[in-house]
Amino acid sequence: MPPNHPTENQPPLVVFMPSGRRGRVQQGQSLLEAARGLGVEIESICAGRLTCGKCKVQIEAGRFEKHGITSHPDHLSPPTQEELDLLARMSADGCRLSCQAFVQGDVLVFVPEEARGQKQIVRKSATERAIPIDPAVRQVYVEVEQAALGEHRGDWGRLQDALAGQWHLHDLSIDLHALRRLQPALRKGKWRLTVTLWDEREVIEVHPGYREGVYGLAVDVGSTTLAAYLCDLRTGQVLATESAMNPQVKYGEDLMSRISYAMTHADGLKKMHDAIIDALNRLAAAAAKQAGLRARHIHEAVLVGNTTMTHILLGIDPSELGGAPFALARREALDIKARDLGLRLHPAANVHLLPSQAGHVGADNVGVLLAEEPYHQDEITLIADIGTNAEIVLGNREWLYSASSPTGPAFEGAQITFGMRAAPGAIERVRIDPQTLEARFRLIGEERWSDEWQGDPPAQLAAGICGSGIIEAVAEMYLRGVLRPDGRFDPGLQHPRVRWNGRKPAYVIATADQTTTREPILVTQDDVRNIQLAKAALYAGAKLLMNRAGVTQIDRILLAGAFGSYIDPQYAMILGLIPDCDLEKVYAVGNAAGDGARIALLNRGKRGEARRIARRVTYIETAVDPDFQEEFVAALHIPHARDAFPHLDGLLPAPRPVPSRGRRRRRQLN
Amino acid sequence: MPPNHPTENQPPLVVFMPSGRRGRVQQGQSLLEAARGLGVEIESICAGRLTCGKCKVQIEAGRFEKHGITSHPDHLSPPTQEELDLLARMSADGCRLSCQAFVQGDVLVFVPEEARGQKQIVRKSATERAIPIDPAVRQVYVEVEQAALGEHRGDWGRLQDALAGQWHLHDLSIDLHALRRLQPALRKGKWRLTVTLWDEREVIEVHPGYREGVYGLAVDVGSTTLAAYLCDLRTGQVLATESAMNPQVKYGEDLMSRISYAMTHADGLKKMHDAIIDALNRLAAAAAKQAGLRARHIHEAVLVGNTTMTHILLGIDPSELGGAPFALARREALDIKARDLGLRLHPAANVHLLPSQAGHVGADNVGVLLAEEPYHQDEITLIADIGTNAEIVLGNREWLYSASSPTGPAFEGAQITFGMRAAPGAIERVRIDPQTLEARFRLIGEERWSDEWQGDPPAQLAAGICGSGIIEAVAEMYLRGVLRPDGRFDPGLQHPRVRWNGRKPAYVIATADQTTTREPILVTQDDVRNIQLAKAALYAGAKLLMNRAGVTQIDRILLAGAFGSYIDPQYAMILGLIPDCDLEKVYAVGNAAGDGARIALLNRGKRGEARRIARRVTYIETAVDPDFQEEFVAALHIPHARDAFPHLDGLLPAPRPVPSRGRRRRRQLN
Repeated sequence: MPPNHPTENQPPLVVFMPSGRRGRVQQGQSLLEAARGLGVEIESICAGRLTCGKCKVQIEAGRFEKHGITSHPDHLSPPTQEELDLLARMSADGCRLSCQAFVQGDVLVFVPEEARGQKQIVRKSATERAIPIDPAVRQVYVEVEQAALGEHRGDWGRLQDALAGQWHLHDLSIDLHALRRLQPALRKGKWRLTVTLWDEREVIEVHPGYREGVYGLAVDVGSTTLAAYLCDLRTGQVLATESAMNPQVKYGEDLMSRISYAMTHADGLKKMHDAIIDALNRLAAAAAKQAGLRARHIHEAVLVGNTTMTHILLGIDPSELGGAPFALARREALDIKARDLGLRLHPAANVHLLPSQAGHVGADNVGVLLAEEPYHQDEITLIADIGTNAEIVLGNREWLYSASSPTGPAFEGAQITFGMRAAPGAIERVRIDPQTLEARFRLIGEERWSDEWQGDPPAQLAAGICGSGIIEAVAEMYLRGVLRPDGRFDPGLQHPRVRWNGRKPAYVIATADQTTTREPILVTQDDVRNIQLAKAALYAGAKLLMNRAGVTQIDRILLAGAFGSYIDPQYAMILGLIPDCDLEKVYAVGNAAGDGARIALLNRGKRGEARRIARRVTYIETAVDPDFQEEFVAALHIPHARDAFPHLDGLLPAPRPVPSRGRRRRRQLN
Repeated sequence: MPPNHPTENQPPLVVFMPSGRRGRVQQGQSLLEAARGLGVEIESICAGRLTCGKCKVQIEAGRFEKHGITSHPDHLSPPTQEELDLLARMSADGCRLSCQAFVQGDVLVFVPEEARGQKQIVRKSATERAIPIDPAVRQVYVEVEQAALGEHRGDWGRLQDALAGQWHLHDLSIDLHALRRLQPALRKGKWRLTVTLWDEREVIEVHPGYREGVYGLAVDVGSTTLAAYLCDLRTGQVLATESAMNPQVKYGEDLMSRISYAMTHADGLKKMHDAIIDALNRLAAAAAKQAGLRARHIHEAVLVGNTTMTHILLGIDPSELGGAPFALARREALDIKARDLGLRLHPAANVHLLPSQAGHVGADNVGVLLAEEPYHQDEITLIADIGTNAEIVLGNREWLYSASSPTGPAFEGAQITFGMRAAPGAIERVRIDPQTLEARFRLIGEERWSDEWQGDPPAQLAAGICGSGIIEAVAEMYLRGVLRPDGRFDPGLQHPRVRWNGRKPAYVIATADQTTTREPILVTQDDVRNIQLAKAALYAGAKLLMNRAGVTQIDRILLAGAFGSYIDPQYAMILGLIPDCDLEKVYAVGNAAGDGARIALLNRGKRGEARRIARRVTYIETAVDPDFQEEFVAALHIPHARDAFPHLDGLLPAPRPVPSRGRRRRRQLN
């Protein structure tokens, strides 16, 4: 077959790899056009102006039986010197630019990863899936008609015409920041410009000539912790992760105390607003620095947070969230200039705030939904995002219920006698020997269990007990009979580990020689009580949603949030924190709220999805639900007064009647 | 005919005065609904909630033959106690609220001026006409559904629903400022709210309950003078007028020197931008104070200015306007938050900047067009807005041409030996006796001519000569033969008033005893030269437009700007500043640019008109027009080297050949 001629007088056949898409295309069409015609996305910013080099491809030579094609680089128009020069500068000799290579015969084209359009990030979580990169901020390269006497459009008018003609972008506005830079940029770039667009509707930046780089920041504004992810908006890559304490903690540990601070101090709102804005500015600067950038390179930020956090962040008094009917100022998503909030990002940067669902289920929970997409699953999924408040979602592709439960800060180590945050030195794992009732534990930052320390104690001794530690401690105390199912210490128990201070018993987890303070670390009856209250709130919330949905069994449980990542699902279930479920199907999904923010940052279509989902979820107000109290009381028991846990079969003590309030003899340990 | 019954079993007849609109309406309809059905606009803000009292009307009693109606107040539903109370509070006893009065029989209704919708301002200018009041900012009163448990719209969602249901307002956004005030306002107002809207698309303010008042500021940002008009946006009334010097004057008297300042000083743009923003803030505060308000009550501002002024105002480097091709950064109108410019008006106020036409014809000229509407006239109108630059428009309803001519600051008293601004003590009128060649003059702030001062000189003696004075001086010097048509002093003239300082002759307008400095005030050969250059620039620009349009005669001439208001049309024509025209049809129209800004402030439809007109005008670039130079040279002569002035018949000396350069004997004065 002579080269440079179509197969059997048919139009040339082009096959794109690795997708395998193939088709006959018009003689003389560029490979870029051919690809688009065949639905193969190839990156291109400069639209064929030999500037960006994004569209480079490799042309294979030889007979490819599987594809029924004999391909050769000569079946394309020969490269010009300019193309060769650009490829050489890119160290891509041997490649072709698909915008410059015109089809003259059959070719098999390999599109390298970096040239593929529709880039994706893979979300690794309970459900692995790919999210196409389609951010709200993108760049285009244009050539603008020069200003000339007798033609009065103005530079912005000329740029608008160029964007319409070369990119089919119409009805754009331009931020004052970009307008101020437009004239010098056009002249410095010799009427060639890289334009940064927001949401296909506003020009937010102009650079002379060709210049790449768009960045975004996703932030989870937690009551306690701020977590920021700086992303390259072209690739989706996370360039830097930064976290910091929410400085509002000094105005109140939990949401109610911050609301109360706003209500009781004339400048309370302002102080908390200024504090969070200042913290976000520091976080953005630190993340940018980590990536070798400046905060002003951040072209957009997507924020999530619970409703109190987002109200304060916007400078809106959260008082209404402190009492029924828990009215939000605004439920809808919001786009606002960063500068209007005092955020020092790019001067024209947008801040997108995901929508809320109801007074106590905020944008963070919408983020969790975006990240986990229970609404795309057949399985009935329970998601619990456990912080000072727990937001619970139950649903599948057909229905979705959500609720908020006031778990309180016990799981974060607060209101626990020796409670502390999850930090080095915190007890995070606890085991109690069924025979001896002796405890052993493991610390964050130390590989060995405490019973392996003999003669070689770790540099950092036990400093306290964190959320996952207290859960294991209470669950083990129950399993080994130290606690009765109602959460009270077995009154008949006599053991050196159990201290009876009158009616205030306590169990010694760490002995004095194992701690930094040389005082033992105890779990008191009050601590157990606080954990019971917290776990019952979560369980009752979940149960309420199950009742509403009319389901008795859950297929999957996702534990979100930092706390959720540390706890052992088995202990969570033994404690009765979560309903019965196949333990294999209980997943820790980490900061799903932050992941959701990142997803909305990288894919603007997901913002529409968030809007639809936020309105679709049926929110159940636990605080006023007549069944909640009953469910709550039943859930105070360990694991539960009524509910069975078939998936813990063999792990739990044999079922017994609910114990009476009177004292009982200590049950024999297994 | 029994009262309370429709005429001859027909539905009731309602006649609204003074419009005379009439029609039969449904029994039981409110007068307000009836009015709307008949196309009679009656004001109403509270939509029938007995709050605003705007819709009060008078019901006539008796037989009105002309209207074929027997009217009586009893033909309406009787007033409730609440209606009577509100009318009493408004001192409107005897009136009815049209929203509360339901038609039961024939009535003739008088709608008082204050209750009429579609209020108008009357523009008194060359063409008197009425401009309907339809500002971009308006208020509506709504009742919002209370927040309730189990309903999660959020307050903004509830307000949106109320605005949609009660006012058919959809797709609104809300400024953060208003969002921050929404929750307390709703509760303080018991879920009744006055909402301030911008452009039917954004909520910019919320007030608890019923509260009226929207204000706007129109500002003409001149190179030399800033003029601000504070308007009540409900009535169109100008509540305060304030003017101030443009503080940029210290960086350069004329546009070119300011452009040059921006080009040659790194912080030049910033300094000039900051200066104008600061000045506008002072102006707004002063105007508001004059009206008993604060600047934060100003809900919108409309600004006009020449292109250099608007660029600097926006913080855009004006350098490109300093040289061909005189490229604008942006020609289109602009809406921008006042806060983004550093303007301290209402926190959510919008600033609207009218569009420009071309590099040297700015928003101020578009303002002039809006104010004078030559595009709605049959007569061919020449409009000259004379400042440091002169913008000239020629046209009628079929075509429009514009040009800019660099007249320089001579007309403002600069570059004139004894020149000064139009201020008390300035010579504004000059007469030279044809027989004696003695001069007399009149000062600003003094009624009497100088020859009437004998024995009783005014408190303020002559301090200098302003623009209108120098025009009259030069014209009179020409008329009386002191100057030849080429502008040179008649070389043969010997007179005490004429001082020959070698080749630098001068004429004494005010003698030493008539001046503050005790030195005589002279008009020198250089002064005459500068006036010739300025007037020739204007005339040549006008002539160029006439040539382009193919017209030889102008029907009307409008002189805009402060200078235009002071000059005597006859002297302007004798000098050859303006082309020949019926002197009765030469009008001074004052600050037409500022009036245009006010019109766009009060009627948002006019902004669309401005946009269309700005694009329709054909701009002629005088600087590069090959004919300009020739026209300019011919126009240097007084009044002109070629053109005839039939309307000055008998006023000018007989036509003579252009004098040679050689010395001539002094011509006999008439």
